[in-house]
Amino acid sequence: MHRVVESVGEDVDEVSEGDVVIPTFMSVCGECADCISKKSNLCSKYPFKICPWMPRYETSRFTDLKGQVLYHFIFVSSFSEYTVVDVCNVTKIDPAVPPNRACLLSCGISTGFGAAWKTAEVEKGSTVAIFGLGSIGLAVAEGARLCGAARIIGVDINPNKFEFGKKFGVTDFVNAANCGSKSVSQVINEMSGGGADYCFECVGLASLVHEAYACCRKGWGKTIVVGVDKPGSKLSLSSFEVLHSGKKLMGSLFGGLKAKTDIPILLARYMNKELQLDEFVTHELQFEDINKAFDLLIEGECLRCVIWMQK
Amino acid sequence: MHRVVESVGEDVDEVSEGDVVIPTFMSVCGECADCISKKSNLCSKYPFKICPWMPRYETSRFTDLKGQVLYHFIFVSSFSEYTVVDVCNVTKIDPAVPPNRACLLSCGISTGFGAAWKTAEVEKGSTVAIFGLGSIGLAVAEGARLCGAARIIGVDINPNKFEFGKKFGVTDFVNAANCGSKSVSQVINEMSGGGADYCFECVGLASLVHEAYACCRKGWGKTIVVGVDKPGSKLSLSSFEVLHSGKKLMGSLFGGLKAKTDIPILLARYMNKELQLDEFVTHELQFEDINKAFDLLIEGECLRCVIWMQK
Ligand SMILES: NC(=O)c1ccc[n+]([C@@H]2O[C@H](COP(=O)([O-])OP(=O)(O)OC[C@H]3O[C@@H](n4cnc5c(N)ncnc54)[C@H](O)[C@@H]3O)[C@@H](O)[C@H]2O)c1
Ligand SMILES: NC(=O)c1ccc[n+]([C@@H]2O[C@H](COP(=O)([O-])OP(=O)(O)OC[C@H]3O[C@@H](n4cnc5c(N)ncnc54)[C@H](O)[C@@H]3O)[C@@H](O)[C@H]2O)c1
Repeated sequence: MHRVVESVGEDVDEVSEGDVVIPTFMSVCGECADCISKKSNLCSKYPFKICPWMPRYETSRFTDLKGQVLYHFIFVSSFSEYTVVDVCNVTKIDPAVPPNRACLLSCGISTGFGAAWKTAEVEKGSTVAIFGLGSIGLAVAEGARLCGAARIIGVDINPNKFEFGKKFGVTDFVNAANCGSKSVSQVINEMSGGGADYCFECVGLASLVHEAYACCRKGWGKTIVVGVDKPGSKLSLSSFEVLHSGKKLMGSLFGGLKAKTDIPILLARYMNKELQLDEFVTHELQFEDINKAFDLLIEGECLRCVIWMQK
Repeated sequence: MHRVVESVGEDVDEVSEGDVVIPTFMSVCGECADCISKKSNLCSKYPFKICPWMPRYETSRFTDLKGQVLYHFIFVSSFSEYTVVDVCNVTKIDPAVPPNRACLLSCGISTGFGAAWKTAEVEKGSTVAIFGLGSIGLAVAEGARLCGAARIIGVDINPNKFEFGKKFGVTDFVNAANCGSKSVSQVINEMSGGGADYCFECVGLASLVHEAYACCRKGWGKTIVVGVDKPGSKLSLSSFEVLHSGKKLMGSLFGGLKAKTDIPILLARYMNKELQLDEFVTHELQFEDINKAFDLLIEGECLRCVIWMQK
């Protein structure tokens, strides 16, 4: 999402009318222990949750024409021409960045990129395996590529994704639907000679986290959970393996990024022609065609579809 | 275990007759990717496993007086006056260190210390929670103390352990058998205002790993598995929590230490009166009384009991 500030409330001085901003579902209050720490991006004051309100007062700022309360959605309520967002959920950006590129950093692309860059801290020369080559997985590839990964193994069940992958530095492909008698983790363990240094789950299936963990390099491998599984889902790991393997398991919400400081860095890298964003936008549609955009996503033909709110 | 080299095999030049060494169950071949890397202590050439042989040729070097093969035990076979150990499993040490102190670094104390120092990389001013105050847990406390932890919360079901804990810097105690209607993790979350920065499981129960994970600080907390659970035991974590909490899960075999380089560092810190070792030795017995030593361990009155092999 990409917005222009129309007006600001009392006491807001971080942004003003006319500023270009990106709203994000992750807040940055700037004052809590997490916002102050370099190690966390999970603001304690306004923690992310699926709730129908704005974070600060847990109230709505929307009504319909009859005065009935309308609900907010994950703090940004982005499918509307005008929205009300807490200042903790906006990041001021360089207005020179085209809106149909900047908007990508509101969640998906930033999340994937950050998962490689901030959460995993991918090292130069390393081997990365990515389960799921949607935009999130491909953004992990882009992050890993810019961190200098030597080998990026992409896993998907849709072979169309493999062509997309090549643009973002994916060097090897595994079709998870076509591994014969082997599991994906066996295939990756064999092709990498003992596992990938970093494994990212970008689908949202606990079973794939198990596969990712199983082909993560012993001694130092990191398994990073990015995909969102169904509520109540459990990860089940062998106590023996957790203790004896030296592998690390971690999650990555919004790629471990702090929106207000990290999004401007990513946009500067885009303007500097390092970070690829154009390649993620396969479609652009008007707001009235939004349902077509969802169909495209489901069909798997689309990476990111930019919705123009105004003609 | 602490030994004096009696003789060496062909091509062995790292140690020679008369050298004082500590045998360890973890090998260091010095050549494999893991031994070369700073990030792993899991030698790939001679990986740790419970097997009845020496690691290099998977054969026995022991027979009884009738020529019958006798088995080795985790590469060091330490309950004997003389043993045969691969050079990859010995660390040459300063002969000035008293044998009844140096022997502690063969496994338990080094493991606990390393878990805090190398695996968790405990930071100055942080809060640590330790589940289980046996020698391993107390050595974690000692490691955390020397890393500058501000608060060390010890958890045990045996209140006698609390007095021992004080010697190693434990500042707060939680009796897990006596938390009323609360879980241990609730108690720790409350007393630490949101969880400990590092939680160490030093008992060997998956259920306690779950508790440790549950009271690990969101955003950056690390849960370190040190205790050895029963074969087949599973750790079950909520996918939602793994993704959304920013917590990290990791194991620590032999405290993440590389024996040949790290044991000498720990011994130098002992000789320098920084690292406490004397306090771990509550009993010393002759080899003939070894069963009494096991009874003492089980009764919980003993931290480490040194066995003298020769009178
Ligand atoms: N952690 C976060 O902050 C965060 C942020 C945004 C999205 N997400 C999550 O990331 C995940 C991916 O999002 P996306 O937009 O890239 O989705 P997407 O649907 O575009 O991509 C998912 C990909 O996984 C592939 N796939 C499906 N089943 C598979 C299997 N069994 N093995 C291998 N590949 C398989 C699909 O073919 C598809 O290419 C989702 O779960 C989403 O909710 C997380
Ligand atoms: N990771 C490694 O490389 C490594 C090396 C050596 C030992 N270990 C393992 O470390 C663990 C601890 O070893 P140790 O020698 O200190 O054992 P120990 O028996 O001396 O200590 C265990 C402590 O846990 C306490 N305890 C038992 N149940 C508890 C509960 N439910 N809640 C809280 N405390 C409880 C006991 O009272 C005792 O004080 C063992 O599982 C051992 O196998 C691991």
